Amino acid sequence: MTARPDRAAPSLPLFDTAVVAGVGLIGGSVALGLRQRLLARRVIGLDASMDVLREAEALGVVDEVRAGAGEWLRAADLVVLAAPMRALAPLAAELAPYLNPAALVTDVGSVKAGIAAEMERLGVRSFVAGHPMAGSERGGVTHARAALLENAVWVLTPTDHTPLTALSRARTLVEELGAAPVVMPPEAHDALVATISHLPYLASLALTHMVARDERLSLLAAGGFRDLTRVASGDPRMSRDMVVENRAALKDALGRFRRQLERLEADLDEPEELLAAAHEGKRTRDSLPVVRRSLLPQRHDLVVAVPDRPNQIGAVTQALGAAGVNIKDIEVLAIREDGGAIRLGLESPDDVTHAAGILGAAGFEVRGRG
Amino acid sequence: MTARPDRAAPSLPLFDTAVVAGVGLIGGSVALGLRQRLLARRVIGLDASMDVLREAEALGVVDEVRAGAGEWLRAADLVVLAAPMRALAPLAAELAPYLNPAALVTDVGSVKAGIAAEMERLGVRSFVAGHPMAGSERGGVTHARAALLENAVWVLTPTDHTPLTALSRARTLVEELGAAPVVMPPEAHDALVATISHLPYLASLALTHMVARDERLSLLAAGGFRDLTRVASGDPRMSRDMVVENRAALKDALGRFRRQLERLEADLDEPEELLAAAHEGKRTRDSLPVVRRSLLPQRHDLVVAVPDRPNQIGAVTQALGAAGVNIKDIEVLAIREDGGAIRLGLESPDDVTHAAGILGAAGFEVRGRG
Repeated sequence: MTARPDRAAPSLPLFDTAVVAGVGLIGGSVALGLRQRLLARRVIGLDASMDVLREAEALGVVDEVRAGAGEWLRAADLVVLAAPMRALAPLAAELAPYLNPAALVTDVGSVKAGIAAEMERLGVRSFVAGHPMAGSERGGVTHARAALLENAVWVLTPTDHTPLTALSRARTLVEELGAAPVVMPPEAHDALVATISHLPYLASLALTHMVARDERLSLLAAGGFRDLTRVASGDPRMSRDMVVENRAALKDALGRFRRQLERLEADLDEPEELLAAAHEGKRTRDSLPVVRRSLLPQRHDLVVAVPDRPNQIGAVTQALGAAGVNIKDIEVLAIREDGGAIRLGLESPDDVTHAAGILGAAGFEVRGRG
Repeated sequence: MTARPDRAAPSLPLFDTAVVAGVGLIGGSVALGLRQRLLARRVIGLDASMDVLREAEALGVVDEVRAGAGEWLRAADLVVLAAPMRALAPLAAELAPYLNPAALVTDVGSVKAGIAAEMERLGVRSFVAGHPMAGSERGGVTHARAALLENAVWVLTPTDHTPLTALSRARTLVEELGAAPVVMPPEAHDALVATISHLPYLASLALTHMVARDERLSLLAAGGFRDLTRVASGDPRMSRDMVVENRAALKDALGRFRRQLERLEADLDEPEELLAAAHEGKRTRDSLPVVRRSLLPQRHDLVVAVPDRPNQIGAVTQALGAAGVNIKDIEVLAIREDGGAIRLGLESPDDVTHAAGILGAAGFEVRGRG
């Protein structure tokens, strides 16, 4: 059963020993959430910096600290990789030899395809890549707080090889931290953040470059322009690493952005078209939620029974993708010895019928859910 | 003499009868400023909408209201055109036959080259185009307040035909309203707002269009993305009219934006270059003033005596422009019967020497000012 946010606190912690590797803003917030919500018996902070470890201990963010990987890691049944993007792969390689195969391993990086492939290469089987979509202008463990993750969308990106049990445990962890899990393939996630995060960063950078070295322009460019380019003010190295890691999806998003700009430029000579575009832009922007909310209203659901072995989610999504059925949400509903069930959120009742036919023909047991 | 913001209130109002034509957010705020700062004996609101006039009167924004142009306009010694962009030219044409040649006429539109040419065509000689760079998410006379204009940069864009007396009076008006005048040619203003206002609007529109009709994208696109696309949420018709009016300068800005994006896209494969670009973007953005400030620190000034007749400012700026001298600020210092003096803010002591030579050779009386 999926944990429900409104259920009573479990009598036993979800985890015995949780390790947070990289105790910065996000790692520190995860550690605080684990402690404050009694989700782990003890939380160990692992970091390359002794200063960070001392601060994390002094602030009560973790119970214990470690400066490097070692046999002690075998006791961990939860390992959260929370190092900066550029340190993530080396960190995974350092930890991999000591990981308990039964431990749930996850990360919090903002680009997902690379780390999933890396963990596969390292033979870490029960890994579920994740991305809590939360942040703050100020980084570091000093600004960590459990509330940062509350109500945040936390994307989980299983691959075809992710065990259903691992995905289910990751989902429960996210929910127990007060966040809202959304499940999608790594490539879908990366395309999505390219559009809503990495492209706006590059656009802001391009705009700031246009006013650089022009004293009068930058003088008048206060106010609205300053708000618009806020993301250009983030940590340059972290921002750079993020967009470089996601450059394939970002180049695709840049191509689409260019086509939108070209259309708008052409519309400058077609005022009625431009007015329609302005109306559509306002409608879309005004409909964006002020706070990210996880769960789409799902009225068109299909429940699929799946054996608990690799490639089952992949087989389901690939069969539907090939048939042009758009999956809007995936949820792991139940895990049993002999398998489990997943809920697919689809776009229409027709899609439910269509998908049921396809999956039935492929040998899956399905039922609709209203 | 230029009015100083800190001087005592004048014993006589600057104007006898001020007319604000178009009593919306900006027009209403000008009217309130004129009344609260005792700058006019009476303020008349002119608007095509009876509802707006009733509200303006009820809120005490104006002393009197009029629903159309007429002989009564001859009593006005200040006329402020504050109608929306699309209504500006028809409004100017409606008022022109009744304007007193001694009246100072100005406007508050956000694009300047067109209206300046239009007023010239209509034979309104003492017109000084203006653009108070102030605004609010909420429009209409209901939200008008004198404070909206306080400390705002108010660009004035005289042409070669603008009488020095008119520019001087406009500058005094702006200062007395608590705003900070910045003088530049209409084309320079339009290029500037294309870069810092109209281009960001189009970019925001393009970004919102990329998440339109994708429920999952727009769901996750809260938070930062929402901030970034705030300008796409403005009034569609006003925004459209503004960018169409300024389309020539905007197309040029779009070209430069595209080149910046292309450079950044290429840098995705050159991580060191991209890091440098990220650092430059952060430096530039962090150095933008939180509140727009008008006056550049002017340490390299040249004062030029000019006869009070058309084309004098034009003659000065053209001579210096042809010689590659960059004028950073212009201020009208004094108006006398036989002419006046302007202060030029230049970039370096060398420029002051250079400019003095050029203008001296052209027959102008000049002196440096430290």
